[in-house]
Amino acid sequence: MQIIYLDNAATTWPKPPGVKAIMAEVLDQYAANPGRGGHTLAMKASKILFQTRMQVSRLFGIKNPNDLFFYLNATQALNQAIKGYLKQGDHVITSSIEHNSVRRPLEYLRRTKQVEITYVQPRADQLFYAEDFRQAIRSNTKLIVISHASNLTGVILPVQEIGQVARSAGIAFLVDASQTAGILPIDVEAMGIDMLAFPGHKGLYGPQGTGGLYVSSAIELEPLIHGGTGSQSESVDQPSTRPDRFEAGTVNTVGLAGLLAGVEFVLEKGVENIHRHEWGLAKQTMQKLLEIPGVEVYGPDPSVERVGVVACNVSGVDASEVSFILDQRYGIATRAGYHCTPLGHQTFGTLEKGAVRASFGVFNTEQDVERFVAAMREIAEAFHS
Amino acid sequence: MQIIYLDNAATTWPKPPGVKAIMAEVLDQYAANPGRGGHTLAMKASKILFQTRMQVSRLFGIKNPNDLFFYLNATQALNQAIKGYLKQGDHVITSSIEHNSVRRPLEYLRRTKQVEITYVQPRADQLFYAEDFRQAIRSNTKLIVISHASNLTGVILPVQEIGQVARSAGIAFLVDASQTAGILPIDVEAMGIDMLAFPGHKGLYGPQGTGGLYVSSAIELEPLIHGGTGSQSESVDQPSTRPDRFEAGTVNTVGLAGLLAGVEFVLEKGVENIHRHEWGLAKQTMQKLLEIPGVEVYGPDPSVERVGVVACNVSGVDASEVSFILDQRYGIATRAGYHCTPLGHQTFGTLEKGAVRASFGVFNTEQDVERFVAAMREIAEAFHS
Repeated sequence: MQIIYLDNAATTWPKPPGVKAIMAEVLDQYAANPGRGGHTLAMKASKILFQTRMQVSRLFGIKNPNDLFFYLNATQALNQAIKGYLKQGDHVITSSIEHNSVRRPLEYLRRTKQVEITYVQPRADQLFYAEDFRQAIRSNTKLIVISHASNLTGVILPVQEIGQVARSAGIAFLVDASQTAGILPIDVEAMGIDMLAFPGHKGLYGPQGTGGLYVSSAIELEPLIHGGTGSQSESVDQPSTRPDRFEAGTVNTVGLAGLLAGVEFVLEKGVENIHRHEWGLAKQTMQKLLEIPGVEVYGPDPSVERVGVVACNVSGVDASEVSFILDQRYGIATRAGYHCTPLGHQTFGTLEKGAVRASFGVFNTEQDVERFVAAMREIAEAFHS
Repeated sequence: MQIIYLDNAATTWPKPPGVKAIMAEVLDQYAANPGRGGHTLAMKASKILFQTRMQVSRLFGIKNPNDLFFYLNATQALNQAIKGYLKQGDHVITSSIEHNSVRRPLEYLRRTKQVEITYVQPRADQLFYAEDFRQAIRSNTKLIVISHASNLTGVILPVQEIGQVARSAGIAFLVDASQTAGILPIDVEAMGIDMLAFPGHKGLYGPQGTGGLYVSSAIELEPLIHGGTGSQSESVDQPSTRPDRFEAGTVNTVGLAGLLAGVEFVLEKGVENIHRHEWGLAKQTMQKLLEIPGVEVYGPDPSVERVGVVACNVSGVDASEVSFILDQRYGIATRAGYHCTPLGHQTFGTLEKGAVRASFGVFNTEQDVERFVAAMREIAEAFHS
């Protein structure tokens, strides 16, 4: 049975063939330590790392590639941004659909540094409005941090408008692009984004073990990780130069070479085309699922454009049971549970039994939609007949 | 010209063929997100991650593999250990040959949390003695952290004896095995090690982007990174269960599969055999270099057993120039400079012009030693004739 992979919001799969090819080449031919020695193999490693920095910068409209730092994953990038920026007693505004990679660092700072947090809720139409973020601003508000899109329902937040609110109030603006990097157009300058965290292994089609953070040169952060940088070694503090200041220790050269291939694949396909494809499949899926008795679909009406994520369930059945049947009986890989966003589930009313999430990637087809919908129909009939 | 790679202390190269093979397989066949979904592909990813945890545990004598956490590199592991353990006003004892990955986190805590630091010096024979660590203990000493071996001269610290000092005083003991994991025998129980940080891409022959930290179940740490864990998602804090509590965000599945192949290679070769080979080459190198007029060799006499690292230079010449000539004219990859250990250079009297470091791996041969020594002879003659 050929597997239908609908878990692209967790990790995209398969990867474009170029990813494996370049990783193998780097591992074979020049996996020496970039920036840690001037010899030929190390220079080759430095060069591919620089190329990755250039291409990711191109994708996000980042002017200076040295303002881009590479990490293990988006979670580390978000921790660096949040913990490196907020200070004792600051106020931060965020949304009620955040992933735990935003919520948990914030709640940690609430416990340890008396940081105050406002969680902005969606309105009755299940959408977020920049005006509600403006209303939440206090005299000690230092940061607005939001997901670009929900990892549960795919709802897109008005990043550009919220960016304007932040900019006009002199508040820093951090965007978690975990569900949108490589899927929705992102331009940090045009959108007023001061900091952008992203994973390498989702919409950028790189391997796991990669992610990064853009930080505008106007923003000062305390490094989260201190250590060797191959530069200003004699200083007891991190060097002041970027990216070294924020990239202590050896980076994932092989993985970042894979990310380069992934990003080049995305640039070639075109972000708009990728989004049109994935959203098209998700919209079809929702429309068809809504016709099936006993199947619930969460989030706004399918007429509202989102990223390619569908949250659904069979009424009265535990989501993990449905997901298990999809996997074992139909060979369809989805994800069940809380998707690390209990906030999102609370917001969308699915906190009790979770949701089955089907998320689409560039390699999914209309046939995949048909098979998923047919499987959901059979499961619903089996439980409700 | 075939490259002679003598920069194994930065990153081992080449890697055993099994590393590339398993990474390609994982990327192709099951690079889904481990622990983030119950479907078949995610289960396969979880399984290989578990195997890596098991084999690394076996190598280090770790009883419970869940006490082992995977990170981007040893630097992140050391930051987690040091910043997660030390509190306001604590005293920590360390050595004067530490890498910046230990020194900079400690100095950061000195600035921000008034942590007090004692740097223990070597004695006149350039060696360290456990007794000197015992003498440094104060009433507020909470941690002893040392490198297992110097990344500059290869000098081995008496880990087991220092472990006894720590244990008998009820002080936590953290070892940085960056230069010894896979090279010297390590048994966390027998050596009294409470926390062990290690890179995956050096003596364990995995790819860059991998490293880890063992933390004894008796030690409580504050997580450095907060975020999604795929478990206890509804909690605003990290889950209490290990390894989830200390592994927020998606791990480097592909890289850790490579690490598995590397560790199995090391287990098969045998750590003792690897050390005998590398130290044999380093000792020969030092003995031969000492016979060349105008060549300096740093650290203790070659009769003192160390890891396979040689620090040397041509008298009166900048180390980076010598390293550059070695690379460009002789195809020999070494590293020049401070090796992120200004402390070590101060200790060994090489702070002004750095040192050329030649470091051996399992794939180096006596022929490599001959070619390196011959090249150093020619360079010394050119500068001193």
